[in-house]
Amino acid sequence: MNEAEPSGRIEIRVRYSECDPMGVAHHTAYPVWFEMGRTELLRAATGLRYRDLEAQGFFLAVVKLDVRYKRPARYDDVLGLETTMTGSGRAKLEHAYELFRDGVLLATGSTTLVCLDSGGRPRPLPDGL
Amino acid sequence: MNEAEPSGRIEIRVRYSECDPMGVAHHTAYPVWFEMGRTELLRAATGLRYRDLEAQGFFLAVVKLDVRYKRPARYDDVLGLETTMTGSGRAKLEHAYELFRDGVLLATGSTTLVCLDSGGRPRPLPDGL
Amino acid sequence: MNEAEPSGRIEIRVRYSECDPMGVAHHTAYPVWFEMGRTELLRAATGLRYRDLEAQGFFLAVVKLDVRYKRPARYDDVLGLETTMTGSGRAKLEHAYELFRDGVLLATGSTTLVCLDSGGRPRPLPDGL
Amino acid sequence: MNEAEPSGRIEIRVRYSECDPMGVAHHTAYPVWFEMGRTELLRAATGLRYRDLEAQGFFLAVVKLDVRYKRPARYDDVLGLETTMTGSGRAKLEHAYELFRDGVLLATGSTTLVCLDSGGRPRPLPDGL
Repeated sequence: MNEAEPSGRIEIRVRYSECDPMGVAHHTAYPVWFEMGRTELLRAATGLRYRDLEAQGFFLAVVKLDVRYKRPARYDDVLGLETTMTGSGRAKLEHAYELFRDGVLLATGSTTLVCLDSGGRPRPLPDGL
Repeated sequence: MNEAEPSGRIEIRVRYSECDPMGVAHHTAYPVWFEMGRTELLRAATGLRYRDLEAQGFFLAVVKLDVRYKRPARYDDVLGLETTMTGSGRAKLEHAYELFRDGVLLATGSTTLVCLDSGGRPRPLPDGL
Repeated sequence: MNEAEPSGRIEIRVRYSECDPMGVAHHTAYPVWFEMGRTELLRAATGLRYRDLEAQGFFLAVVKLDVRYKRPARYDDVLGLETTMTGSGRAKLEHAYELFRDGVLLATGSTTLVCLDSGGRPRPLPDGL
Repeated sequence: MNEAEPSGRIEIRVRYSECDPMGVAHHTAYPVWFEMGRTELLRAATGLRYRDLEAQGFFLAVVKLDVRYKRPARYDDVLGLETTMTGSGRAKLEHAYELFRDGVLLATGSTTLVCLDSGGRPRPLPDGL
């Protein structure tokens, strides 16, 4: 991990409703957690709240999502999610994710977001992002 | 059931992601299905699409939800949901729900919706509803 | 609230994925939060983990859910949820819920759970519950 | 698309609860739909039901998920999802997905599944898959 890249960590307790008949977190729970990681990284690194960005007409839409699942997460597990901003452009943000339980890597992921206006057209990211 | 009350039936196949570690549909899936039942009843009974109502500034918000769970629904089950409009007022709609599998009642429910404007203030329902 | 009734409080930050096109938390998010409240009340009041109960063959199934929605919760809001065990029987648990934001009541709810074995048949609750 | 690869199409109507404050389907709804596509492709191509596979001790776990989002899907849209089995190994299945609305491509995706036993250990796929 590049020390210059903004990075943050959140804790997540796996909810019962996130788990499936295999008794593990459903694979669609992970990108929900990634989104939480981005919200908190934005808050921690810039002091901005994503909901204020939306109120100002900046909408960050996911255009790419990749996840690799290595070990299952289970109901009631406490997980650590590391979110890192790995790249950015005029209207684009890239993040990478590492999900851990007790130091063991459970999954990795990456996303690309584009900045849109309220009509869904690309617009430059706000200053400071 | 009052024959004069608008009523409709939809079929739902239980999704894997809707099921929990007990191997049955999680109890929060049922109100999602009820909402689908209301969308389709509106379409069938009035020709209106709920998304057009929202585009015109009418938002129907759930203020009351009651569900009684009698028998579990399982992954891949095909369920029948009967949705009935049981009451209405100037800015209010009441519905009742019965969920079946092969003629066996799995659950019942009821909801009350209120009509709001885009700012969240009560407003009368549109004509024809 | 009866002081003798076990009660606990959790904090919840509303997730983006829990919010709908009205910009508020979807009504099905609330019973997910109630379930989290029960998990934490069980842990705090008895030291038991619900996942251990399931591992021992005790499954708590929701048979009744009632929710009253008074004011909307919004994305990124930090909510306080008070969960109280309001009643219990040989194979039954009743809970009540109050959801707050900054001391303002947003919603109330109640649930009834029954204790089942792995085959879905009623069984008495474990000792200590 | 290789004509020899098993492929199937399902229709999906976007649910209100799947949509977010941007008014479009949340990006985590897409892998839920992909899973539905796999269930139906399995049924159509082999006559097998995934729930029967689980009952026989074969669990298909997602180890890789990639999605590219090109255009948003909206509430009440009727979408067509094409699911294709693009590869398979002794204990592995690969699928590709194309999501359309009125012939316009909204998203593409791919997944890799591995076959596990009830204890989470890899096991060969059942015959006929």
